[in-house]
Amino acid sequence: MKSVIAVGMLLTTTAFNNVYASETQVKTDGGISISILDGTFSFDLGGRLMIDAAFYDEDKNPLGDGTELRRARLELGGTFFKDWGFDLDVDFGAGRGDVKEGVIYYKGFKPTKIIFGHTKEPFSLEWHTSTKHTTFMERALNNVFLGERRIGIRTQTSGQSWSAAAGVFGESFKADVDKEGNEGWSTAARFTLAPLHSKTRSVHLGLAGAYRSPNSDNEVRFRARPESHITGTRYVDTGTITNVSNLGVYGLEAASVFDAFSLQGEYIHTDVSREDGFSDVAFNGWYVYGSWFLTGESRPYKAKNGSFGRIKPKSQKGAWELAARYSVLELNDGPITGGEEKNITLAINWYLNKQTRLLLNYIIVDNDQDANAKGNAVGNDDPNIFQMRFQVDF
Amino acid sequence: MKSVIAVGMLLTTTAFNNVYASETQVKTDGGISISILDGTFSFDLGGRLMIDAAFYDEDKNPLGDGTELRRARLELGGTFFKDWGFDLDVDFGAGRGDVKEGVIYYKGFKPTKIIFGHTKEPFSLEWHTSTKHTTFMERALNNVFLGERRIGIRTQTSGQSWSAAAGVFGESFKADVDKEGNEGWSTAARFTLAPLHSKTRSVHLGLAGAYRSPNSDNEVRFRARPESHITGTRYVDTGTITNVSNLGVYGLEAASVFDAFSLQGEYIHTDVSREDGFSDVAFNGWYVYGSWFLTGESRPYKAKNGSFGRIKPKSQKGAWELAARYSVLELNDGPITGGEEKNITLAINWYLNKQTRLLLNYIIVDNDQDANAKGNAVGNDDPNIFQMRFQVDF
Amino acid sequence: MKSVIAVGMLLTTTAFNNVYASETQVKTDGGISISILDGTFSFDLGGRLMIDAAFYDEDKNPLGDGTELRRARLELGGTFFKDWGFDLDVDFGAGRGDVKEGVIYYKGFKPTKIIFGHTKEPFSLEWHTSTKHTTFMERALNNVFLGERRIGIRTQTSGQSWSAAAGVFGESFKADVDKEGNEGWSTAARFTLAPLHSKTRSVHLGLAGAYRSPNSDNEVRFRARPESHITGTRYVDTGTITNVSNLGVYGLEAASVFDAFSLQGEYIHTDVSREDGFSDVAFNGWYVYGSWFLTGESRPYKAKNGSFGRIKPKSQKGAWELAARYSVLELNDGPITGGEEKNITLAINWYLNKQTRLLLNYIIVDNDQDANAKGNAVGNDDPNIFQMRFQVDF
Repeated sequence: MKSVIAVGMLLTTTAFNNVYASETQVKTDGGISISILDGTFSFDLGGRLMIDAAFYDEDKNPLGDGTELRRARLELGGTFFKDWGFDLDVDFGAGRGDVKEGVIYYKGFKPTKIIFGHTKEPFSLEWHTSTKHTTFMERALNNVFLGERRIGIRTQTSGQSWSAAAGVFGESFKADVDKEGNEGWSTAARFTLAPLHSKTRSVHLGLAGAYRSPNSDNEVRFRARPESHITGTRYVDTGTITNVSNLGVYGLEAASVFDAFSLQGEYIHTDVSREDGFSDVAFNGWYVYGSWFLTGESRPYKAKNGSFGRIKPKSQKGAWELAARYSVLELNDGPITGGEEKNITLAINWYLNKQTRLLLNYIIVDNDQDANAKGNAVGNDDPNIFQMRFQVDF
Repeated sequence: MKSVIAVGMLLTTTAFNNVYASETQVKTDGGISISILDGTFSFDLGGRLMIDAAFYDEDKNPLGDGTELRRARLELGGTFFKDWGFDLDVDFGAGRGDVKEGVIYYKGFKPTKIIFGHTKEPFSLEWHTSTKHTTFMERALNNVFLGERRIGIRTQTSGQSWSAAAGVFGESFKADVDKEGNEGWSTAARFTLAPLHSKTRSVHLGLAGAYRSPNSDNEVRFRARPESHITGTRYVDTGTITNVSNLGVYGLEAASVFDAFSLQGEYIHTDVSREDGFSDVAFNGWYVYGSWFLTGESRPYKAKNGSFGRIKPKSQKGAWELAARYSVLELNDGPITGGEEKNITLAINWYLNKQTRLLLNYIIVDNDQDANAKGNAVGNDDPNIFQMRFQVDF
Repeated sequence: MKSVIAVGMLLTTTAFNNVYASETQVKTDGGISISILDGTFSFDLGGRLMIDAAFYDEDKNPLGDGTELRRARLELGGTFFKDWGFDLDVDFGAGRGDVKEGVIYYKGFKPTKIIFGHTKEPFSLEWHTSTKHTTFMERALNNVFLGERRIGIRTQTSGQSWSAAAGVFGESFKADVDKEGNEGWSTAARFTLAPLHSKTRSVHLGLAGAYRSPNSDNEVRFRARPESHITGTRYVDTGTITNVSNLGVYGLEAASVFDAFSLQGEYIHTDVSREDGFSDVAFNGWYVYGSWFLTGESRPYKAKNGSFGRIKPKSQKGAWELAARYSVLELNDGPITGGEEKNITLAINWYLNKQTRLLLNYIIVDNDQDANAKGNAVGNDDPNIFQMRFQVDF
């Protein structure tokens, strides 16, 4: 039996009802969103699902065609007492329950926000653009210098055309809590400026720096997959670098949107300082890419946090995007021969609607002789990769 | 019962809000269901919890009495833009976060549906009947030939009295994404016909076939627990079969409901083709069972996808069902001596209400000499098993 | 697509709607709560997030400063057909999906409730007080005798000023389901009495006992962290005690609230009976603590289940609490030299609002010579620990 009912915090006096009546909202666009008293209290439940397949045109090493649930994420968020909020996102793509964003925040000092918990270091334009909205299936090779979310405190603020964020962090929530050694820690800051930003045209400039102290093992390792996640092969790999006293990481960002066209690039440099007479080393990576929406959409820039947001197709037919990226990671320096990789990625993205998209990437990989997965692979391997993703977020 | 909430009546003064007025619904019957504009957008959150206990009347081998959370599942589903939908189910019964159904689908070409993601191969009546509704606690022994959900594409369609489905698949989302070898893949199809189906009487016939190519290890293994999950002992076990080029799997289904009585049976045959001069082998298994509702309910047949659905007790006292199953799995062929197992299961099911049920199973196990868990158990073991389950879904 | 839902005003539309209108509610205070027909059907979705950091003033052993997501929990609960309910809580703090409460219950025989599934043995005041509300970051050392939730059946009832609960249990859902040996089992009962309990003044007395039979390994082990979870060091550790036939556990509880002041204490004694001529051993632990709310709040006592509940700050500024605990665990007896630990904990708690709190604990640890983590640490170690937690529940 289906019978019609009214919803809400029903109180018997009509006057009081009116208060809630005009201010209680329940929404869905595939998820749930509930809000009371203009968001004094609210709750959102959503998620994302990414289904990948990859086919490897192998050169010297086997890479392993296959499929994957790249992300299967449940996302909760809420507001309480107006100024307080939380986010708890858990990913199940790997068959575990990996906490991604896991934070409590205070937003009472608008526009400043103070965030406590498991979150991202303020660093990198591409990293701060949600995987729901990144132009390519995988972030560029130089993302290797950023690693995972960490437990700490981050504060961020913004003006009309700029954003600033800084924080102090421990390690990822997955860092073994049973180790007797001290955890590593880090501090990072990022500043972004948008000298121009309108709905369809924007210029973004960004600057970031981080200082990281490793945990009591004093070790660090950088290694990256060839911008394809289904293979486990990481050609470029420094191996374990010992006697590390600290890391200095620096990043430069630039991006511009001109109607249907956009350009974006980032350079990240990492200094590894070592003790006990071991020589310091430095690595770097950069990428630059261009994107063109055949259907006329513009990549939406969010000056308040210096990142890009959701593409909303203009027509029922959806949006079509062409993109190309050149990406370089250089892990050779002094005694460390981690190898160098240079990738060209060609992309076709079909945004079926504002929540669903199909991504096709073709990656032309160029590894040098040292890019041999620390001897576990043959160097100078130049495979081509075709991979696709079907994605929904709700 | 479901109570439906219509909202927005307050806003009937304006045309805009009027659109939503009579068409937004919020329901709960223990879970959450929200729907807007007759389901143009909707979201459902539910789950299931199954609490098991098993007691083993041991014969030759120890089996290990115990308890278990057989399933503790969170289930999200939604519709967006009318024709698109998703499902994301995660099970926590094993203390991990195992994705079960994880799909995006398009249902715009009614009655045809195209499904992308982590889902079941179209195969087997019992496998396509949800564990919320299966007559016995565990599916029959021959379910061993089906394995797990896989990542792929499935399409299905149906008529008034038939259903057809076919798909192409990779491996389960749990298949190691770091392996350099290629994943296995498979293709499967299923056709079901219901020459007769009314509310209380139906006849079901089904036919299914699958072709599977193993991953680059070229290995396959079939082994099954004695229709009881708490013990880890798998008497029937082919061990690893090497040099496998491909599998051919064939299934026959038949079922009939006559008011409170029903019969169901399935036969599944598997051909294992091997290369490099290794001899081909073939295995098979089948079951047949009968069910009788003392309280007069009928098992609800769903012709549109050839499966059975939820039992709704006729009275406040709930529904009572008696059932018996004979199940056989034959894993002996040529060089492979995986053993043969024959089980008789007697069942009493009490459906306290449409969401809660108590299951009692008594299993009489008859193993042959080769059913020795590849030498890890004594063969010819004939234990009896008493197990029960308390289940809720919401 | 979003739709604004107005509530309550259906009261004014038709009598038909009016029937339901006054009985249906959708709420959020950071989570979701839906209720229909005065709770005949209802669903709640919430959770908790606890972000910890610890700094160790080490004495003889390294302990390892660090951060942690102590709890990141998703909590579902519901009612259906008025008398039935379920709870399914999953914790992701460890990067898995650990089921905590996972139960189906029947509450038709008010005030008696029958609970099936994964739940707590009825034992201990502090253990039955949710970690959302416990006065200190970690429960006292003697909590080691209680262990984890177990799968079983528990029944509880209560009067105006007393509660009683008893149950029979198997093992935790995490106990290996593949073990051939039988699971352990236990039975436990708890009775609490509140000779006095008003809103701001109460006296609690409690008595509990448990009998436990270990699994087929006939082994048991007691070990505890120093009331700090980030270090993995467990100074007090009996090691594996073999040939155990059964355990007898006894507990005494007392607590009192006098306006802003409260006292609480528990003593737990465990007899370990051993067979095959191995000598029986006995261990015990106890704690006592006092708490004072500078801002005048009272710890809310719930006589119906003999536990304490949520602190609701009286003012916008939140509530401030000072507390001190003395805690002892004695694991030395006869051949077992598990060591003795005595901790003093000083606490400052700031309840920012009814859902958010900041906890600061300073722990002065006093270990004896045998408290050496079974030889993995230096005995007689007396570190001091500073730890803090930021917590939200929604």
